[in-house]
Formats: sequence, structure tokens, C-alpha cells
Amino acid sequence: MTAQMLRGDVAVLVPAAGAGVRLGPGIPKALRELAGEPLLVHAVRRLGAAPSVGQIVVAAPAGDVEAVRELLASFRRVDVVAGGASRQASVAAALGAADASLGIVLVHDAARALTPPDMIERVAAAVRSGLPAVIPVLPVVDTIKQVDDAGRVVGTVDRAVLRAVQTPQGFRRDVLVAAHEAAVDEHTDDAGLAEKMGVPVHTVPGDEAALKITRPLDLKIAAALLTS
Amino acid sequence: MTAQMLRGDVAVLVPAAGAGVRLGPGIPKALRELAGEPLLVHAVRRLGAAPSVGQIVVAAPAGDVEAVRELLASFRRVDVVAGGASRQASVAAALGAADASLGIVLVHDAARALTPPDMIERVAAAVRSGLPAVIPVLPVVDTIKQVDDAGRVVGTVDRAVLRAVQTPQGFRRDVLVAAHEAAVDEHTDDAGLAEKMGVPVHTVPGDEAALKITRPLDLKIAAALLTS
Repeated sequence: MTAQMLRGDVAVLVPAAGAGVRLGPGIPKALRELAGEPLLVHAVRRLGAAPSVGQIVVAAPAGDVEAVRELLASFRRVDVVAGGASRQASVAAALGAADASLGIVLVHDAARALTPPDMIERVAAAVRSGLPAVIPVLPVVDTIKQVDDAGRVVGTVDRAVLRAVQTPQGFRRDVLVAAHEAAVDEHTDDAGLAEKMGVPVHTVPGDEAALKITRPLDLKIAAALLTS
Repeated sequence: MTAQMLRGDVAVLVPAAGAGVRLGPGIPKALRELAGEPLLVHAVRRLGAAPSVGQIVVAAPAGDVEAVRELLASFRRVDVVAGGASRQASVAAALGAADASLGIVLVHDAARALTPPDMIERVAAAVRSGLPAVIPVLPVVDTIKQVDDAGRVVGTVDRAVLRAVQTPQGFRRDVLVAAHEAAVDEHTDDAGLAEKMGVPVHTVPGDEAALKITRPLDLKIAAALLTS
């Protein structure tokens, strides 16, 4: 296959229906502004800049579908659908609207608004190489302790075997479809659903710029990254 | 006891002899500049602003003791000693120079240069209340996976029971002395040495501002925090 033939074999699902209480009440998390633009716009711009991406499906809050559609009107290959009550339901709704001819499906968090296009390509390329499920990860830099209910330390965890997980998580389309069909409103990431089915999940290097922007401090960090 | 009687029952040890390769080679990590001042100066200023702190002992690179002494000359109650080849050796050297009448000993990382004085007081107060060993912690916000040597996911870790550890870590003086006497150049934090002796280690809330400044990105984050 040539590079040109590979272009556009990836659908990206963006569940963006969450309320985002950690950044303060009121505005959906994905619509919080960073440098004058909603996080979702930053995220979609970078997804659109990844050459492999053929379609982006955003699951918006049910009452905001039209507004989000207008917000993203300037981007090509973007579809907006109504999300569900849970993140998992929103991913499933977006998956239902994804072009079935795109054999690689990524699930991305709009709060990771500054994820670089080359990291998106790295996840897609690993799936394309034959891996059924791929997640971008970073080493855990802090010392990690396990605690009991009273906040007392039970032990020090070997952080060398731990990885902090980012998004987009990438899947062969049939693997993600099966994982979501088997899932029963579980509180895990999409790779966790695949793990439960016994699907091997591989890792590729993430990127510090792909931080999840959820706390007020994260907005400051993201603004500093944008201007540097 | 009145608040006044409590003043000055804490010694803080600051092992600052590390080379800090993660911020680039050459300059000792604690002497990297943030907003025109070395990280160590930022750290010592905040330690000195905590009312309980009666002495600060800095373990500097052996060749830099005089320079670090001059750097910190404007701060009261600061002593500078030569550090050792490992972090643990530097802590032991600083402990040897600490005033034995100070019954609470904190161990702090100079790279956590923006640690607020009230967080330092929180750790000291917990030790003063009768706990032998206290660490400040934050919840783990990322999804965490365990991986094998090939970078394949072994499983998803329950992050609800995990905490990211910050400093200063606080100890009853006799506990820290015993822990370091028993230690044999182990790669763990000071609380980990106490754990190995069977000493219960308790947690108190940390602070996002106490981030460890080790990567170039962290310097940007810290600069953003300072100006906000």
C-alpha cells in the first residue's frame, strides 16, 4: 500500500456530552474555552490535521447538537450526534454513526484538546500494523502508594510497571464494536472493555502535550503550552 | 500548648545534591532557574514562611556548598552541608546536621519549589498530633494500567486506592533516625524506609502547586502558576 492509499482509514469518536463539574458547574466540559476557543474545537482541529483521519464523530449533549454542529461547521468530515447518559453510551452512539468502511476506530477525549497530530498517527499506525487495541501511555513519574479506607499507607507500588493512559485509544473496528456490545455500563476506559474480552492491548508512547484538561490548573498549563 | 509555644519544633532536610538530568545536563537540578531564581531559593523561601520551621538543612553538591551557602545567605535558620552520592546519603548527612532538640523532621524535595507554607504546616501538624510518619498525597487522576516488559497491558489498576506522593514527608525525629540507620541504599522515598520498619504511614492532602519540577514542561507550568 502507498501512503496515499492509507489516507482516511480512521474514524475518530469524540464523546463530548459530559458536564465537567471539575472545571466548575454549568458549561459542558468540552465547551470550556482555552485561548478563546472551546476545548472541543482545539481537539477537532488537531484530529483533522492527522492525515489518516477520514471521519470525526462527536457525541454532543442532547440539547446542544445543533450548536456543536455550527461550532464545528468549518471543519470537514465531522459529524455530530446526540450523546448518551454515560460516556460509554456516548461512545456507542458515535460508533453507530461512524462510516463502517473505516477499519480503524479511535476514541478520543475532547478534554485532551492539545493532543498532537503525530501522536494520533502513532496510535492509528499501530492498529494498522495488526494490533487489535492500542493505547498511548506515559511513564508514571510520581511515587505511588496504595492506601486503605482510613488514608493509611498499605504499601509502595512499583511504578516501573505502571503507565498513565492517554487518548486517543485505537481499535480494529470489529474489536470496538464487540467490546461495546458486551459492555454493561462499566466504569472503565474503552481499552478496559477490550481487556475484559481477552483482547491484547498494546501501548505506544503518549505525549505530555496530550494532558487531560479538567481542573482550573490544567487550563493554565494548557495556555502556557499554547504560547510556548 | 499555645501557637507560640509550637513555633520552631520542626527541622526540614532538603537533599539538593542531585544532578537533574531530566532538565538537561550540567546544572544541579535544585539550582535551575524559575522566574530568575534557582528552584532551591523558591523552596527555602516557602519553608521559611511556615511558622513551625525552626531549621532548614540543605545538602548541596560537595563542590557547591559555599556557593549554595551564599545563595541562601539572606534566609535565617538555614544550614548547608555537603550531600552524598545518593539521595538517601544526602538525607542522612542533613539529618546529622539537624538540631536534635527539634522533635519533628520533614524531608523536602527542592524540585517541589512552589510547595505552599500551609501544606508544610499541615504535614508538621499531623506529626505533632502523634502520628510517626506523614506524607502529603493527591488522588491519581489518570487511568493507570499495569504493563509487562513488552509494553503489553496486564490489567487496569484501581486508581481509587492509589495516591501520588508529594513532599515534604514528615516524621517523628526518632523514627527517621531509625529508618535511615536501618536503610541500605534502597531506592525508595523516606516513607518507604519507615514502611519497611513496620511504622504506620498516614496521609494528609497535598497541593497541586507542590508539583515536582523536573521536566522542561514543568518549568513552564511552574512559571504559569507563579504569574497567576
